[in-house]
Amino acid sequence: MNRKPTLAVVGATGAVGTVLLELLSTRQDVWGEIRLVASARSAGRRLVVRGVETEVVVLSEAAFEGVDVAMFDVPDEVSAQWAPIAAAKGAVVVDNSGAFRMDPDVPLVVPEVNAHAVRMRPRGIIANPNCTTLSMIVAIGALHAEFGLSELIVSSYQAASGAGQSGVDTLRDQLSKVAGTHLGTQPGDVRRTVGDFGPFPAPLALNVVPWAGSLREDGWSSEELKVRDESRKILALPELRVTATCVRVPVITTHSLSVHARFENEVTVEKAHEILRSAPGVVVTDNPAEGEFPTPADVVGTDPTWVGRVRRSMDDPNALELFVCGDNLRKGAALNTAQIAEVVAAEFVASHT
Amino acid sequence: MNRKPTLAVVGATGAVGTVLLELLSTRQDVWGEIRLVASARSAGRRLVVRGVETEVVVLSEAAFEGVDVAMFDVPDEVSAQWAPIAAAKGAVVVDNSGAFRMDPDVPLVVPEVNAHAVRMRPRGIIANPNCTTLSMIVAIGALHAEFGLSELIVSSYQAASGAGQSGVDTLRDQLSKVAGTHLGTQPGDVRRTVGDFGPFPAPLALNVVPWAGSLREDGWSSEELKVRDESRKILALPELRVTATCVRVPVITTHSLSVHARFENEVTVEKAHEILRSAPGVVVTDNPAEGEFPTPADVVGTDPTWVGRVRRSMDDPNALELFVCGDNLRKGAALNTAQIAEVVAAEFVASHT
Ligand SMILES: NC(=O)c1ccc[n+]([C@@H]2O[C@H](COP(=O)([O-])OP(=O)(O)OC[C@H]3O[C@@H](n4cnc5c(N)ncnc54)[C@H](OP(=O)(O)O)[C@@H]3O)[C@@H](O)[C@H]2O)c1
Ligand SMILES: NC(=O)c1ccc[n+]([C@@H]2O[C@H](COP(=O)([O-])OP(=O)(O)OC[C@H]3O[C@@H](n4cnc5c(N)ncnc54)[C@H](OP(=O)(O)O)[C@@H]3O)[C@@H](O)[C@H]2O)c1
Repeated sequence: MNRKPTLAVVGATGAVGTVLLELLSTRQDVWGEIRLVASARSAGRRLVVRGVETEVVVLSEAAFEGVDVAMFDVPDEVSAQWAPIAAAKGAVVVDNSGAFRMDPDVPLVVPEVNAHAVRMRPRGIIANPNCTTLSMIVAIGALHAEFGLSELIVSSYQAASGAGQSGVDTLRDQLSKVAGTHLGTQPGDVRRTVGDFGPFPAPLALNVVPWAGSLREDGWSSEELKVRDESRKILALPELRVTATCVRVPVITTHSLSVHARFENEVTVEKAHEILRSAPGVVVTDNPAEGEFPTPADVVGTDPTWVGRVRRSMDDPNALELFVCGDNLRKGAALNTAQIAEVVAAEFVASHT
Repeated sequence: MNRKPTLAVVGATGAVGTVLLELLSTRQDVWGEIRLVASARSAGRRLVVRGVETEVVVLSEAAFEGVDVAMFDVPDEVSAQWAPIAAAKGAVVVDNSGAFRMDPDVPLVVPEVNAHAVRMRPRGIIANPNCTTLSMIVAIGALHAEFGLSELIVSSYQAASGAGQSGVDTLRDQLSKVAGTHLGTQPGDVRRTVGDFGPFPAPLALNVVPWAGSLREDGWSSEELKVRDESRKILALPELRVTATCVRVPVITTHSLSVHARFENEVTVEKAHEILRSAPGVVVTDNPAEGEFPTPADVVGTDPTWVGRVRRSMDDPNALELFVCGDNLRKGAALNTAQIAEVVAAEFVASHT
């Protein structure tokens, strides 16, 4: 028997799902049947994947019949309920939600950093990291391999689409309301004008919002703790010092991070450039004299992690400052999911020939 | 003799000058004549200050005749040339440019932190710090007085007006071009659409730009070095460890900073709140459960430094994380200038009665 694996995309209609269908249509085609799954709200819609119109089916046990690999791009609670069901039906689940990332029996995988972990999946589930962590970790992982990471202090500049399609719709709607006005100069004038805040706790147009996710203890946001916990797990550094401040900015897609990274060993900018230039999945754009540094508007829609503004801390020969951009819907979600699923597909093919 | 001091506002037509005229019209009135000065481009324009239409005169030696205090809100090279001339004519100069800030014979003053330094002005010039430093330093100075500051790692979210009126005009123009479109999802689509970048090295609408100022050695921007050098000078901590990454965001006015501050002594969030609540010029808004944290759209047009998201680092009992917002045209420029000038005016009155 020599068939290609059957794939289910659960959450095919969402922000991440939409980019996944685009990637499945453009990357090397390793899949047999591709089944599109969403809620009853979208069942019956027809979406194009690999040039073929495909009907969206409703999430149910039957949807996993004969499925070898299932990508889950749905809210946490939907994954929590349905990923184990899909796994019980024999599918290997690659889950994009936060439901399983810290489960010790679920590997948290970034192929460029820890592809080997894919095989250790006692629950039949592999987790995809959160988009903020993913937007920096490929670059950080490469530097860690050379210099030995000891601390990360990170401030984020996160895009609206990190909050799903409703985040994008909200920002676009708010932008139409503030464009052409003289708002943004009096306290609260933007707040009173934009109307709906959508998934954000404050206006996002003409603003930045120092909050993402839900409240955890001691004033931390869930997003900030994810950056900490997931970086530690992916890098297999359970004691790594990590501090994050997560801030939303009025950008549609692509997260940026200002990173202060401290290492066991002394660093140089030259060596860091050399490591990053040869790291798979990383592009260095770092020549401010020519206006070269990554910005989200230039990085959006691309696969790699882009790194610029590499500087050695003036007070610490072991620390680097970096500005990193990554498309939160591609490497930050859909692309990493596709890469993990392709590793599983290769296993499948190897074991079925 | 018991007259009020005569004031000259040099650069009265600019972004900072405009806010200064507003402040001079609303704060306690300590001034005699107020003379408005700009370049030949604006001479003859009539601006309102204290409810009175006043004609703008051209910058010349004659403009400083009989002036006791001169506020300079003009580009560096104009200050460099004209501030010493005004001082030679007997005016005390309060300069907002970068021309004199690091001159050892010019004090760099933030009244809440080092008002005493105003008197030590051998050149007759007092410098006002850069807006990014000013947006955080009142809060940091208060915490330093209690805990003893040892390190700052700062990432900024800087508003367009930090680059002057042309920054604001550029952002508004770009926003009208991207609003109502589906831009921001393909690499370079925003770059190709917005046209003029104005004073910025990349599009600012639907983007963030990790650059402010000009290139200095080892890849640092002038803005990043200002945060370092000026923080050290204001706090009288010449060896303080300071690292900044300065990033422009699509906000009209009000700079935000994500600050990792390390101290000699152990900190607690409760104690930090208490110190900040009683610090003059600081407002604490820190209750994420109720959506309370500072954002630039709410802070713009107000005088204080707003502080929220206060957390103690999970890996370091001596470090705090803060998110700070300050109006870069008020406390970041015009307000601090007005406060310094008022200290000089009080001296003047004391010595003339
Ligand atoms: N956006 C990012 O940058 C990003 C990055 C990494 C990870 N993630 C994670 O990926 C997941 C999807 O995020 P997103 O941004 O794509 O969200 P989204 O735009 O809101 O899309 C949600 C998707 O889930 C489906 N869905 C919702 N409830 C369902 C239910 N009860 N049964 C079946 N399908 C249901 C929706 O289908 P309908 O059309 O039927 O409603 C839609 O396809 C989330 O867990 C998110 O945290 C997102
Ligand atoms: N924007 C901020 O957040 C901020 C904060 C702190 C400090 N500063 C500093 O404050 C200064 C002013 O900044 P800004 O943002 O207000 O700039 P701006 O909006 O560009 O205004 C510049 C002002 O300087 C005047 N000027 C320019 N060249 C002149 C010349 N040759 N002779 C006389 N006047 C001249 C202009 O008058 P015309 O109308 O005649 O051109 C205008 O009033 C700069 O040094 C800046 O670095 C700015």
